Order: sequence, then C-alpha cells, then structure tokens
Amino acid sequence: MENTEQQKKDEQFMRRALVEAEAARDEGEIPVGAVVVAGDRIIARAHNLTETLGDVTAHAEMQAITSAANQLGGKYLTDCTLYVTVEPCIMCAGALGWAQVRRVVYGAADEKRGFRAFAPKALHPKCEVVSGVLEEECRTLMTEFFKSKR
Amino acid sequence: MENTEQQKKDEQFMRRALVEAEAARDEGEIPVGAVVVAGDRIIARAHNLTETLGDVTAHAEMQAITSAANQLGGKYLTDCTLYVTVEPCIMCAGALGWAQVRRVVYGAADEKRGFRAFAPKALHPKCEVVSGVLEEECRTLMTEFFKSKR
Repeated sequence: MENTEQQKKDEQFMRRALVEAEAARDEGEIPVGAVVVAGDRIIARAHNLTETLGDVTAHAEMQAITSAANQLGGKYLTDCTLYVTVEPCIMCAGALGWAQVRRVVYGAADEKRGFRAFAPKALHPKCEVVSGVLEEECRTLMTEFFKSKR
Repeated sequence: MENTEQQKKDEQFMRRALVEAEAARDEGEIPVGAVVVAGDRIIARAHNLTETLGDVTAHAEMQAITSAANQLGGKYLTDCTLYVTVEPCIMCAGALGWAQVRRVVYGAADEKRGFRAFAPKALHPKCEVVSGVLEEECRTLMTEFFKSKR
C-alpha cells in the first residue's frame, strides 16, 4: 500500500520531469528533464541546455541542483529527491554525490554514458536509487529525438 | 630535451593555477585553482567557489570549462590543456570528458575523491593525463588550509 502511494508520487513527479524534457526537445536539445522535490513540493525544475548555452556542463541535473540549492539557501540537498528522465551521467552523479541528495529517481537507463557502469560509487552512500519510472515515455522521447536528427 | 621544454611549460601554467588556488584560500574556500590553455595561451582561469556561491557544482574545473567554452565560442575543448592544482573529482572528470579535453595536468593526487579511483574512464579516451606537477606546493596549500580549519 505504501509502495503504491510512493510509486504514484514518483510517476507524478516524473511527469513533470518529462514536461521539462519536452521543452528541451522543442529547443533542439537532447530531451532530458529534471525536477528536485523537497517535502512533496517541486523546488527546482530544469532541462538540458548544452546546445543553447554552448556548455557541456548545462545538463538538466546540474542546473536543477544549483537552482534547488539557491532555493533552499544551502548547498546540501540532503532531504531532496531528484527526478530525471534519463540515468545521470558521471558528471551529474558526481554532483548529486557532492550535494548529498538522498534519493534519485530516473526513467530510462543509459548504458553508454550512465553512472552505474562508469562511476557506481558517485552518489552519497545513503542515496536510494529508483529506476524505470515511466521508462517507456522517457526512452521514446530520446529515441524519437535521435531518429529525427538522422 | 622536448620533455624538459614541456615540463617547464607545465610548471609555468601550474603556477598560474596555484595563484588561483591561493585566491580561493584567501576567500575561505578549499584552495583549488585551474587554468585552461590553448596554443600556449591561458583562455580561462577559475578557483573553487562552492562556499561563496553555495553551490557544490562551482568547482574550479567546472567554471574553467564553462569560461573556456564561452571564450572559444564552442563547447568542445579538444585542443586545450586543463591545469588544476588537485586531481579532479568524479563530477569534474565527467565534465572534462564531455568537453573532450585532450590533456589534463594536475598537481596533488586526491585518494578520497579523485576520479582515478572512482571513475577511471571519465575522461575522453584520447586524453593524456599528467600528475605530480608542483605537487608539493599544491598539496601544502590543501593541508595548511585544513589544518587552519581544525
């Protein structure tokens, strides 16, 4: 019962991350979106802006972390959950680790660039990781994007 | 002979990174500094600002990468060398990988947080890594800083 409740919440927040990912797509960016949630409230939302800003560090998660820290007035996101449509890369996982984020929920796995294969200890040791939430939608956004670029 | 020439240059640019690290220390920040060099010219310099900005992503390398990309007008730093006083962490190594930096030179190793132990494949496959340049100075800045904080 509790699990079902949490799953519902996770899907609800992942939908918000998907809205961000769609905004990225509409700007010609690789469609990845993220939101940071504290106490069931979204305190930051962001999408990939690497092309727009000409900056490889402008991933959705990086911007969401910076924005959430500004919002909270402190650099640690200990009681926050980060939702992101695609598995974080090494860089973003490292940042999530520094921010001590305690829960990371992602949609689609990224076998080529995801942190799980390349930096499995990047997150805080107490961080819970949930994968596969709205996986199909998250993955489809990516595959459709790359198909349209061919 | 060529090696000696390169070593001299590396020490010269690491001294500039050390100046940045000292600026960080003087602002109460963990003393890490970085410069990005393209064609023997410094195109970006930065130091750690995590406390000042309340942002865990404000490492010297991250800011140097963003600044260098702005300077060059493109997001890839393929022909650049990044000098940093301390071994990059997972996050920064991931960013250096995305930016396709081809040469990374660092001073002191960081066994606890450095990428070599935790994300050894983070950098671009063609990236050359040089360690131990002005190691003593780089390490002393760090140990003196942490001693003063005790």
